[in-house]
Amino acid sequence: MINDHKAYAQREKAYMQGNLYPDVKVGMTKVNLTPTVTKDADGKTHVEKNEPVYIYDTSGPYTDPNYTVDLKKGLPPMRQQWIADRAQKGQGITQMACAKAGIITPEMEYVAIRENMNCQALGIESHITPEYVRQEVARGRAVIPANIHHPESEPMIIGRNFAVKINTNIGNSATTSSIDEEVDKAVWSCKWGGDTLMDLSTGNNIHETREWILRNCPVPVGTVPIYQALEKVDGKVEDLSWEVYRDTLIEQCEQGVDYFTIHAGIRRHNVHLADSRLCGIVSRGGSIMSKWCLLHDKESFLYEHFDDICDIVAKYDVALSLGDGLRPGCTADANDAAQFAELDTMGELVVRAWEKNVQAFIEGPGHVPMHKIKENMERQLEKCHEAPFYTLGPIVTDIAPGYDHITSAIGGAQIAWLGTAMLCYVTPKEHLALPNKDDVRAGIIAYKIAAHAADLAKGHPGATIRDNALSKARFEFRWRDQFHLSLDPELALQYFTEAGHTDGEYCTMCGPNFCAAKLTHDLRKIKH
Amino acid sequence: MINDHKAYAQREKAYMQGNLYPDVKVGMTKVNLTPTVTKDADGKTHVEKNEPVYIYDTSGPYTDPNYTVDLKKGLPPMRQQWIADRAQKGQGITQMACAKAGIITPEMEYVAIRENMNCQALGIESHITPEYVRQEVARGRAVIPANIHHPESEPMIIGRNFAVKINTNIGNSATTSSIDEEVDKAVWSCKWGGDTLMDLSTGNNIHETREWILRNCPVPVGTVPIYQALEKVDGKVEDLSWEVYRDTLIEQCEQGVDYFTIHAGIRRHNVHLADSRLCGIVSRGGSIMSKWCLLHDKESFLYEHFDDICDIVAKYDVALSLGDGLRPGCTADANDAAQFAELDTMGELVVRAWEKNVQAFIEGPGHVPMHKIKENMERQLEKCHEAPFYTLGPIVTDIAPGYDHITSAIGGAQIAWLGTAMLCYVTPKEHLALPNKDDVRAGIIAYKIAAHAADLAKGHPGATIRDNALSKARFEFRWRDQFHLSLDPELALQYFTEAGHTDGEYCTMCGPNFCAAKLTHDLRKIKH
Repeated sequence: MINDHKAYAQREKAYMQGNLYPDVKVGMTKVNLTPTVTKDADGKTHVEKNEPVYIYDTSGPYTDPNYTVDLKKGLPPMRQQWIADRAQKGQGITQMACAKAGIITPEMEYVAIRENMNCQALGIESHITPEYVRQEVARGRAVIPANIHHPESEPMIIGRNFAVKINTNIGNSATTSSIDEEVDKAVWSCKWGGDTLMDLSTGNNIHETREWILRNCPVPVGTVPIYQALEKVDGKVEDLSWEVYRDTLIEQCEQGVDYFTIHAGIRRHNVHLADSRLCGIVSRGGSIMSKWCLLHDKESFLYEHFDDICDIVAKYDVALSLGDGLRPGCTADANDAAQFAELDTMGELVVRAWEKNVQAFIEGPGHVPMHKIKENMERQLEKCHEAPFYTLGPIVTDIAPGYDHITSAIGGAQIAWLGTAMLCYVTPKEHLALPNKDDVRAGIIAYKIAAHAADLAKGHPGATIRDNALSKARFEFRWRDQFHLSLDPELALQYFTEAGHTDGEYCTMCGPNFCAAKLTHDLRKIKH
Repeated sequence: MINDHKAYAQREKAYMQGNLYPDVKVGMTKVNLTPTVTKDADGKTHVEKNEPVYIYDTSGPYTDPNYTVDLKKGLPPMRQQWIADRAQKGQGITQMACAKAGIITPEMEYVAIRENMNCQALGIESHITPEYVRQEVARGRAVIPANIHHPESEPMIIGRNFAVKINTNIGNSATTSSIDEEVDKAVWSCKWGGDTLMDLSTGNNIHETREWILRNCPVPVGTVPIYQALEKVDGKVEDLSWEVYRDTLIEQCEQGVDYFTIHAGIRRHNVHLADSRLCGIVSRGGSIMSKWCLLHDKESFLYEHFDDICDIVAKYDVALSLGDGLRPGCTADANDAAQFAELDTMGELVVRAWEKNVQAFIEGPGHVPMHKIKENMERQLEKCHEAPFYTLGPIVTDIAPGYDHITSAIGGAQIAWLGTAMLCYVTPKEHLALPNKDDVRAGIIAYKIAAHAADLAKGHPGATIRDNALSKARFEFRWRDQFHLSLDPELALQYFTEAGHTDGEYCTMCGPNFCAAKLTHDLRKIKH
């Protein structure tokens, strides 16, 4: 699929096998590098081997040349046997239940290998072992979203002591997009590095669109069930009820959705806190539930039935993403009473989820100026008992519609460094329109940058290996190696070739006489 | 020029007049907003006026409909009389000399008004007065780059107690670009918000290219004189000499260059510190001077003749930008001995510059992972006595060639928040090729975002006004107001109209039933 492109010629799909579970085979991208060839002062040639670099790979079987893509058939159900084995042994269904019982699941070994690939290959020590994964999941500090009805998904972990992950949103709305387009976007998202995928469809064919996505998606899929519930009552907020919502949950659990955004943190008595805001409520789910509370003058049925919700999702190991329905929609509204009141409620709910062995994480803003980011993170860790934080950006200034992948990557990198476990991407079209494929790619790359920058700053084991290999390639004019190691080899190669470059020892930016790298190579030959 | 585009229909060029100097007329962009029209529960219409917002405007006379552009004639020499008056009164030539003598120059009043436009219009108090500007310039904490031979440039200030500024680089290399293209890029850079402009040409026609740029550029222009000096000795580093360099400096001072990057911080005995680096020396000027030192086994002539350099530039009020020739070229090399040894030397030199009333600032990296950014800023403030810091990014991860405007905007926003006064932009083509106009625009917008995010975080007076006006417009579906207030009205409008939008109360992102803003408006009509 993508391997036939010359931008990827030196990349190959590789698999690392588990020790505890030999049928664990973790797919990854192996980048084969060319050697460094130098001539010394006497004209003698020296050849130095450059070790291959392994890249965390979210693309699934699509990049395996031995796999034949068949969207109608769907992806192979890789986890099916593991799930069946657990059921047979009478172990708990959820990863959290297993973790608390001291059981290391195949999924846990899978993610440990996946987080560590370069460490393992290069013999670098890492704190991330299968046992460590188990401990973090048991403690609630990390989540492995893995519905037992979505065996096609490759296990991944969300927690602040692991690599920062990114989520992408796709989905149609009443006015645009078809099923084909959405499945295509899902595969596209995985190709570029999306770790999880939310199907936020609100238009027609919600169920069918989701089915196609789930059967063909190698990463965990999340949804916001209230959207479908609202479609079922013809968009009339007042007609929403626990029964309609419950049935929707079960329907989606059965299909294989891996995590649900549930805006159960909105309390009737807190809705008024958003009244004085510049931008009110900007979460779709949040505004729906707030309106419901006011129309019925009642506590939200999501809050009232939270234990019922947990009982349902526990049967499938669907994780809960506690939605921040009162997140700020502009920098002026950041860190206000409405936002923090909801955070307190979410902290209360996460404990109740854990009691039922339901994995959970907490959604966060949104729009936050830089000087208010730290308070968000610290408060979340404290109030939500270190459950993983999953933020949308944050966007750090409101003045750049058309560029909100950048305004939010700036905030995302900072909050991820401070401890956010997963970043929800924002595309250039945010606030303006639904993203197309180019926008999805631009959003993902911006967020891969933010996430990786945070991994470097946090000292994730092996995070520097790719940077350093790329920098060495750059310095040595191994242009192709540089591109193969980059987040977007296609674009780098395109810019390079469009400028009329060959693989010489300079580029058009400086020309031959002003290339600092070339001058440094000369310089190193001068005795000093 | 740009006003005929419908994306700018509500923008107009406005001027604010000085009090101390009535001939000071500061150009700015006035954004006229439409009123907020609402209907209450009884169907009664309410109209609320929205105050116009003033935007800091770097585009010069080009956006004044009363000005006729004539590139051959050049821009009007706005500062000529002020310069002549100072000479007649026998006042010091440099802004710093005046400031130390207690004189508030017209340039100082100009920048005070420019920094404060919304405060003045809305009656918000600001610490930035002409007297405050004078104090900061006298103290060396801020620089107004303003060569007496570049009267066409509109005064601006670089200092950490003012709005964060951005610099753009243009210029040809031996292999690409013509004079026309470079002048066009200069005007283009000013249109999008570049505060200063460096002409980094290294190819043919350096002198002539620069002349065209200077006569048509409303913002300060910087250069790296060693580039032209090297061209004069046919690219042979060993043939460089103080005499060739001195003559080049004088030539460029006479032309009107406002600031020079001078790599005088490289000492002979420090060059070896870069030997163990992954990426050696990546500054063009730095690699040239290092090679010169080694070839001649001598102290750099820039360091040796630093006082002579100051004597020359003081006659024209050219500011010095002390170049960081040993800046790290990859995250692995950040904050190393080579970088910090040079910073120490720059701290010594800035004091010598100040003694001769030469304005100066300090260049900084480059490539720095997030957790090492703070040390850069703190060390610079301490070692360089609070002279303004002017950094290139920093880039926070090396794995995204093709997207280094984003990797570096992330670092730039952080270091600017911590105190960097000016950010040197990076375009998407960094490390790959020379930027074209699209790249210049993308680089500038990314950096305007970083700079403004820092202004918000630092609490620059009035910085939130534009964000809040835009957010209010967004929430109220005043789409055109939102776009007119944005950094790139053309792109926002393009995305909006391409998606088939009209000006209705929702967009294709959510569709009519799922628009949170619309729901919030409904909600506010419900009693609670």
